[in-house]
This record gives sequence, C-alpha cells and structure tokens, in this order.
Amino acid sequence: MYERKIPRNFHCGISIIMEIIGGKWKAYILYLVQNEIRRPSELNRLIPSATLRVLNKQLSELENHGILKKIIYPEMPPRVEYFLTEFGLLLIPIVNAMDQWGNDHGNTFRELIKTRPAELLTDNSANN
Amino acid sequence: MYERKIPRNFHCGISIIMEIIGGKWKAYILYLVQNEIRRPSELNRLIPSATLRVLNKQLSELENHGILKKIIYPEMPPRVEYFLTEFGLLLIPIVNAMDQWGNDHGNTFRELIKTRPAELLTDNSANN
Repeated sequence: MYERKIPRNFHCGISIIMEIIGGKWKAYILYLVQNEIRRPSELNRLIPSATLRVLNKQLSELENHGILKKIIYPEMPPRVEYFLTEFGLLLIPIVNAMDQWGNDHGNTFRELIKTRPAELLTDNSANN
Repeated sequence: MYERKIPRNFHCGISIIMEIIGGKWKAYILYLVQNEIRRPSELNRLIPSATLRVLNKQLSELENHGILKKIIYPEMPPRVEYFLTEFGLLLIPIVNAMDQWGNDHGNTFRELIKTRPAELLTDNSANN
C-alpha cells in the first residue's frame, strides 16, 4: 500500500520564486535587462522563440511583482524601457548562477540531446 | 537616434538553462522530485495551480532533456515514478539556491504585492 508523509513546508521558498520567475522567459528577461537590454523589441530580437505579446505579458508581470520598473519616455512614438528595481536586483545572483550553470554544462547538454529524436524535445514554438 | 551594440554571447548560458528549466513548473518539479515526491499525482497535489496534463508535459520534457528518468513499475494499475539523472543532479544547487532565495525574501515579496490590486498579479489559472 502506497503512503507517504509530505512535509508541510514545501510551499515556501521555491513556490515564491517560481511565482516571480516561473514564466518561461522571465529569468532570461532579467538577465538581458541587467545587461541593459531594456526595450521590448530589443528583448524580442534576442529571444526570437517568444512572441512580443508573450514578452510584454511577462514584462508586465515582472513589473507588477515589483521586480522591474517601466519607464515611458514622452517621445513620438513613445519609447518604453524596463529597469530592475531594488528588489529585482536581489534576484541577479540567482540569474547569474543560472547563466554560469548553462555555460558550464551547455556542451554536455548539447551532446545529450543530440542522440534524441527532435520530436521529443521542447516545442519552443508554443511560446508558453 | 537609437543605437546599441548587442554582445554576441547572450545566447549562451542563460538560454541553455532556460531551455531546461524555463517551463513554469520545472524548477518546482525538480525541487519536489529531489525531496522524493516522484509520482505525477503527488506532484499535482503539491502544485495545485497546474493541471496534471501540464505537469505530465513538463515531466516528459525534463525526461527528454536527460534531467529526469521515468520508471514504470509493472503493477496494475501501472505506477510511474520520476528520478533525477546524474545530469539532473547537477541542477540541484541552482534549485536549492532558488528555494533559499524564496525563503529569504518571501516576506518582502508578500508585503510588496499586498499593496497592488489583485488583477495586476500573475494569473496562475492560466497554467502556462
């Protein structure tokens, strides 16, 4: 008979950070904003697998979660840029650790998925 | 006139790890599997905001990316459990750092979003 006690504290840390950066492109967006890529169209150029609509939605969520601050410059056409808030800056060590991990293990990952049929891999076109 | 040089190496580390754990619930799934929550239905109980269909899709992607190993036990009804691969274990320090961040900054985040209207926050029901 199958039974297992589940600790109560699972809905703590990880669920909070997933609420903030759990969206498909959010950590990527933060990484790029930190590197002064601030405009939605620029972000889209560097994340072509996502649609601009999806990126704008994730930017809004990051703004509403107090991670990014949106500045609209009174120009014609209006220019929009995103900046990290003080709270958002606290996420940067995590984002950088993620980037470092990718650099350290990217080759292993590429070798590993090379042997798998393409249809098994993530469908990036879904943009979810 | 707006012009900016974009470094070429942006599509390195962060894009690789986002390919692996960029899905909305993937880091959460890895955190729970590491804590011996191995069955899709159990994971769903702890991540009720996601549907079982979405969780199964993310589990399959993690399997196809060499992060998780799926074991089907020959029972009736068949029992399915997921385990971290050797490669998947390499992600655990990142996942744990994310959990730690959430524990450290959860209260600040809760205070911060308390002042915002509910409709501005992430729509968890979307399951994307």
